[in-house]
Amino acid sequence: MIKVGIVGGTGYTGVELLRILSVHPNVKIQAVTSRKESGMPVADMYTSLRGFVDVKFSDPDAGELQQCDVVFFATPNGIAMQQAEALLNAGIKVIDLAADFRIKDQATWEKWYGMTHAAPHLLEEAVYGLPEINREKIKGARLIANPGCYPTAVQLGFLPLIEAGVVDTSNLIADCKSGVSGAGRKAEVHTLLAEAGDNFKAYGVAGHRHLPEIRQGLSIANGSEVGLTFTPHLLPMIRGIHATLYAKLTKDVDLQALFENRYANETFVDVLPAGSHPETRSVRGANICRIAVHRPQGGDTAVILAVEDNLVKGAAGQAVQNMNIIFGLPETTGLQIVPLMP
Amino acid sequence: MIKVGIVGGTGYTGVELLRILSVHPNVKIQAVTSRKESGMPVADMYTSLRGFVDVKFSDPDAGELQQCDVVFFATPNGIAMQQAEALLNAGIKVIDLAADFRIKDQATWEKWYGMTHAAPHLLEEAVYGLPEINREKIKGARLIANPGCYPTAVQLGFLPLIEAGVVDTSNLIADCKSGVSGAGRKAEVHTLLAEAGDNFKAYGVAGHRHLPEIRQGLSIANGSEVGLTFTPHLLPMIRGIHATLYAKLTKDVDLQALFENRYANETFVDVLPAGSHPETRSVRGANICRIAVHRPQGGDTAVILAVEDNLVKGAAGQAVQNMNIIFGLPETTGLQIVPLMP
Amino acid sequence: MIKVGIVGGTGYTGVELLRILSVHPNVKIQAVTSRKESGMPVADMYTSLRGFVDVKFSDPDAGELQQCDVVFFATPNGIAMQQAEALLNAGIKVIDLAADFRIKDQATWEKWYGMTHAAPHLLEEAVYGLPEINREKIKGARLIANPGCYPTAVQLGFLPLIEAGVVDTSNLIADCKSGVSGAGRKAEVHTLLAEAGDNFKAYGVAGHRHLPEIRQGLSIANGSEVGLTFTPHLLPMIRGIHATLYAKLTKDVDLQALFENRYANETFVDVLPAGSHPETRSVRGANICRIAVHRPQGGDTAVILAVEDNLVKGAAGQAVQNMNIIFGLPETTGLQIVPLMP
Amino acid sequence: MIKVGIVGGTGYTGVELLRILSVHPNVKIQAVTSRKESGMPVADMYTSLRGFVDVKFSDPDAGELQQCDVVFFATPNGIAMQQAEALLNAGIKVIDLAADFRIKDQATWEKWYGMTHAAPHLLEEAVYGLPEINREKIKGARLIANPGCYPTAVQLGFLPLIEAGVVDTSNLIADCKSGVSGAGRKAEVHTLLAEAGDNFKAYGVAGHRHLPEIRQGLSIANGSEVGLTFTPHLLPMIRGIHATLYAKLTKDVDLQALFENRYANETFVDVLPAGSHPETRSVRGANICRIAVHRPQGGDTAVILAVEDNLVKGAAGQAVQNMNIIFGLPETTGLQIVPLMP
Repeated sequence: MIKVGIVGGTGYTGVELLRILSVHPNVKIQAVTSRKESGMPVADMYTSLRGFVDVKFSDPDAGELQQCDVVFFATPNGIAMQQAEALLNAGIKVIDLAADFRIKDQATWEKWYGMTHAAPHLLEEAVYGLPEINREKIKGARLIANPGCYPTAVQLGFLPLIEAGVVDTSNLIADCKSGVSGAGRKAEVHTLLAEAGDNFKAYGVAGHRHLPEIRQGLSIANGSEVGLTFTPHLLPMIRGIHATLYAKLTKDVDLQALFENRYANETFVDVLPAGSHPETRSVRGANICRIAVHRPQGGDTAVILAVEDNLVKGAAGQAVQNMNIIFGLPETTGLQIVPLMP
Repeated sequence: MIKVGIVGGTGYTGVELLRILSVHPNVKIQAVTSRKESGMPVADMYTSLRGFVDVKFSDPDAGELQQCDVVFFATPNGIAMQQAEALLNAGIKVIDLAADFRIKDQATWEKWYGMTHAAPHLLEEAVYGLPEINREKIKGARLIANPGCYPTAVQLGFLPLIEAGVVDTSNLIADCKSGVSGAGRKAEVHTLLAEAGDNFKAYGVAGHRHLPEIRQGLSIANGSEVGLTFTPHLLPMIRGIHATLYAKLTKDVDLQALFENRYANETFVDVLPAGSHPETRSVRGANICRIAVHRPQGGDTAVILAVEDNLVKGAAGQAVQNMNIIFGLPETTGLQIVPLMP
Repeated sequence: MIKVGIVGGTGYTGVELLRILSVHPNVKIQAVTSRKESGMPVADMYTSLRGFVDVKFSDPDAGELQQCDVVFFATPNGIAMQQAEALLNAGIKVIDLAADFRIKDQATWEKWYGMTHAAPHLLEEAVYGLPEINREKIKGARLIANPGCYPTAVQLGFLPLIEAGVVDTSNLIADCKSGVSGAGRKAEVHTLLAEAGDNFKAYGVAGHRHLPEIRQGLSIANGSEVGLTFTPHLLPMIRGIHATLYAKLTKDVDLQALFENRYANETFVDVLPAGSHPETRSVRGANICRIAVHRPQGGDTAVILAVEDNLVKGAAGQAVQNMNIIFGLPETTGLQIVPLMP
Repeated sequence: MIKVGIVGGTGYTGVELLRILSVHPNVKIQAVTSRKESGMPVADMYTSLRGFVDVKFSDPDAGELQQCDVVFFATPNGIAMQQAEALLNAGIKVIDLAADFRIKDQATWEKWYGMTHAAPHLLEEAVYGLPEINREKIKGARLIANPGCYPTAVQLGFLPLIEAGVVDTSNLIADCKSGVSGAGRKAEVHTLLAEAGDNFKAYGVAGHRHLPEIRQGLSIANGSEVGLTFTPHLLPMIRGIHATLYAKLTKDVDLQALFENRYANETFVDVLPAGSHPETRSVRGANICRIAVHRPQGGDTAVILAVEDNLVKGAAGQAVQNMNIIFGLPETTGLQIVPLMP
């Protein structure tokens, strides 16, 4: 059994890790830390876990993490970068669900995240945990930067076009919509049901932190810097991301075949039949990204639709997928979760 | 492997059976019938099942059901009563998720369901599939009447009080609230998002079909006819039932201990700590009924709060629980589903 | 023109007052105070008011309230009781939308609200602003205690039965459901969309602050103390209260006629035809309470269904109704708002 | 008083017309026709109208429409084109909220709407009722083609850019999101709460009927055919449209000033301060389109955000605005409705 530790188990990515890992056949949940809730049974905070998780929140300083084989950071940005090195030195794998190790360029990271990086020497080693492009590197990694929710959907949607060199990469547009769980479990006015319910709006149009992450990933695939406009919106629902992607085709190509071939061996990426419109509910609770490909009126604009559950393929599920790869387990272990629909 | 057939796989209880059974370790899905969709892959109708269910809808007359060990009816009322006997005669177990075999008294059934019963001779044999009261009978049953969604929550909430003889059973009140999936997947104006969303109302106050079913179950436990007022309401959400139950205490009793003892050995009934308020989301997607017990201001009114997912413990999950019992499997097989929260 | 001041214009009852008063033909909005937002245009906080409200938040100490004819307190509990007297002494009418003056008995108030009352000598003078029972007193009042949201619906639903003496008043049950706007615009985890959305639960079953208020009102009508069980629940939507009320009939009576007669002259109480199920959306945004009366299966339990918009007839609309009465305007002035449906 | 008739008063645009017109100071509702509901009080279908609308549905053949000064068609496509001429010949103004007269080119209309046009000779005369571009023509019009919901938001958002000649009009992108009330009050599976709730998806990506309407309007403003990709999405809520518009700037221009100047005299178009993100709820129930202008990272992509209530500025409110213009009333008469927020 893989002994697992979770730092920051009180937020939504934390409880989602617990949902998945508590019934993972190869995992023992060793420690879930929370300075504030130390001593409280985890299932008292999340009633949904009653009967499945019987550990208590432990103090992060109590040393229980040192007993683990792998530690997940489901923390705000800026925590993992302070604690990763000690764990790595103790031979423990680290998977960070926050943004600390996602951006290779330290200056860029510090500009967008507004803090000094505490472990810049680990930036190069950290492997960006998108298995569909980095599977081999993940296998041998000690430190995983688990991708952001928007970046997972946007990259999976654009990659086949960019890798095949069939679109104008100077002018990509990603119009994205997310459920509110992406904002986390912080008490804030703008995510109250009475504010965010029955409502829809864009936010962060001037610049969202996921922009440099997406641009980095697409630019690597492209071999040179891409141009990207990224507009996130807030949906009046809890889970789910829908990315609507626009790119100008520079070559005539069978888009459907291109995508089907690219993801033929990817269990967690599902290319829908031509003419489809993926629904966020079709992946609710599951580690799947479903993609549909369109070329309206046969013109030269490709419209790619990609959906995922932001807490699963966009966070905790992908983290477990990375763990499976690192520990040599079949990639689907513990992730055979059928989406909840309706 | 248990070979399973599903009649009426296009509705919500059908797809929910498929969600659970497609990853049940002892089950092979043999046939899903639909006269209208015959030949269409099941996953084309429910994209959520892509990658998990690869059978096609088959014609109900094609004889595939005869290959099964057990057949679930996820049909409208009035279908199972016409087809059950032939299957039973072929040695196939039948679990009806509709109401055909729930009421023992034929005249009562015909009055509330507005049709002539096609198989009244099976009413006595049919076992009411609420394992928490009928587990032993279920073990040897050929024909299961799977309980309704409201009746499951209301009975599990009232039973400890009635069995212990501590309340006035002439005046029970069940104020119940259900998500709209309970109304099924029929195209109707009143369950459109634009009608039922952002809205709340009671319905069927004059008399709802689940009233005689609940009254029958409670009266059996009581040893004589109970008096019950049952008010269902429609919630602006998809899944979940919340039953708020009121009864007058006739004896001074430790309610918390009473409930904890009654359900001490029941995996799928969770009595919450004193002072709790169960949430419907705490059982979303899972085969659990959570119950909390209150006695406001120390008065003589017991207030019982019970929640369940109407499609799981209130329908498909309970049906699989019954199947597990019939076939001698551990009752939790395939039902270790952690609720989806948030 | 009536010069109006609003203390606490940043919460939901405040913005609702502004929505109604900004187009009220006899009102000039003189001052909206907020210590924290002083100087900011009100419409910057509530974009919905752009083009309708052009005042800025003013400092509560700036003396602008002294220019008013009437001041509404849309504040947390405990504010109005400190400021009312000075305004009253200056000849200004005061309408408190919070609870400071709702309970006549000081000790009861202090027990439920957990603070010492700052102006107990005003408790007797304060008129409970439910026009359907206190219209004459309101006409001459200086100080109005505007009723709570639940108390409005529950009292309007029970009053005809109690006044007519046709029910057992020792055992009334009020099962109530409210949208989350009733909890106000405070940043709290439990009212986040990701927590309260797609979910339903009871709360405060052990005792809610509206219990003594309702009990006081019903006991006055009854001539002696009533017995009441009050269970509030939180709906996954923003606006609307649905009260489901249960009482044992002690006399045979035509319930429909009883209610129609009681409210024949009340513009803002609408008794629906027999057999109806009122919907919360049917009063969305409007100053109306709609009521339906049932007697299931002809038994001796009366089931009363009452809906209102908690922010309108349950708060700001009723406050404006009170203002109209005090100033001798037709009661419907500025309140001819058609509900928003769908 | 203007005597008003409504054909098709049972759908959402019909009830919305009634909500607005029933309190319009210069209007008398003369007739609301419905063949199917003839004789039934209108308020029996829409409880929200109890106390505001006391007419009954009348038979369309009964001649009551002939008594009217203006007739609104709130019908499915294909009805108004059959009845408009007779009304016009009787000197009655006609405002069609459906699509019958929106497209000038008969062949284009017939291709997208799949039927033969019954009154092609009226296409030229019909005035496209977007007051912000056609106010003068509307003043003298007999027949108004009231714009579609998406076309209103998209055109108001793009027009200032196109009229000023500052963008590449060969490659406009309109990523639009709509509440489900846009789909009408038909019983259909895909708009059930259990299907469309808690879910998000695109639809009609291959080609939506509003595409040619938008293209026509923008092309007129442009002086030549524009290139447009239009992607509609379905939001899990009832009311509101959010258009996110992308265009490549060809000139350096002060976008904020451009938009503020263009709409300086338009009461119903509100250009928000720089940096804003308009919310659909900020126009809920009101005849307003709010627009914000962005240029992310100072690049050459303009991102325009426009919101409206699809049933008001996107349908019934705009129709009343057109009526006011035709009859020489102040344009805001009866439309001073403050948005409902929260």
